[in-house]
Amino acid sequence: MSEKKPNVPKLGEIGLQNFAPYLMNRIMGRYNASLYSDLLEIRLTTPKMRTLAVLSVIDGPLIRELAIYAVVEQSTLSRTLDKLEEDQQIRRETDRDDSRATHVFITADGRATFERIWPKMAKSYENMFKGITLDERNAFVATLQKLLQNVRHHDI
Amino acid sequence: MSEKKPNVPKLGEIGLQNFAPYLMNRIMGRYNASLYSDLLEIRLTTPKMRTLAVLSVIDGPLIRELAIYAVVEQSTLSRTLDKLEEDQQIRRETDRDDSRATHVFITADGRATFERIWPKMAKSYENMFKGITLDERNAFVATLQKLLQNVRHHDI
Repeated sequence: MSEKKPNVPKLGEIGLQNFAPYLMNRIMGRYNASLYSDLLEIRLTTPKMRTLAVLSVIDGPLIRELAIYAVVEQSTLSRTLDKLEEDQQIRRETDRDDSRATHVFITADGRATFERIWPKMAKSYENMFKGITLDERNAFVATLQKLLQNVRHHDI
Repeated sequence: MSEKKPNVPKLGEIGLQNFAPYLMNRIMGRYNASLYSDLLEIRLTTPKMRTLAVLSVIDGPLIRELAIYAVVEQSTLSRTLDKLEEDQQIRRETDRDDSRATHVFITADGRATFERIWPKMAKSYENMFKGITLDERNAFVATLQKLLQNVRHHDI
């Protein structure tokens, strides 16, 4: 609210090890890389896995919503959906009221594929929070939800 | 320690909005995308920015250490260092005791480049933590540091 701009602290003052975006990039770089090698084994890519993960818990989102949830760019998502549809992992359905809007649904086969990778994701997740109490994890997740509110451009 | 495996909760039970890796990917996807467009304006790439950021606070790391800190793959880093050296933003120096090991240093020009982008990074960072108390931020960073300890493969 003040009209005076506060001095911007330098990165060296904050310290790399205290700079949250740096820590999050390090953590997610490692998490995604480790998941990537698990995915290779069952011939999935990261966008395919994210698409199936979202569709396993959200029923029939629009493609543009799916792109946001799955953190996959629209053009990549488009190719990913083509391949997943070819493999009968998902199906698309035109919206009843808006012929330009398309919903995406997971099939039984898609669900089976996600069930194969989920135990590895759950294990990585468990390893990530090793030695962290439930209270600390809950507080952490609550802060993450606030950060997402702060940075997101969309309402979902 | 128990020999019995606990039942793995399903993603739908945890809930996408409570699944920390999902939230972190969403947050960092947005943060990195917004930074990316700021970087384009001054003709920097994400690997170049990360390299300069790390070198602005860590003096003369080995290339393999730099790859870890900057979360950039070795092959990408190698090309990035070539370009930064061409533009006299960094310089390389062979280790005194090990002729196969190379240290990387930022130059005055490189520091000036980073100074141009840092205010934008600091602003994104500030926006990310808008409305979050210092205590909550500190607790959040402390948890991030533990997560990094849990997932990292290297000692740095």
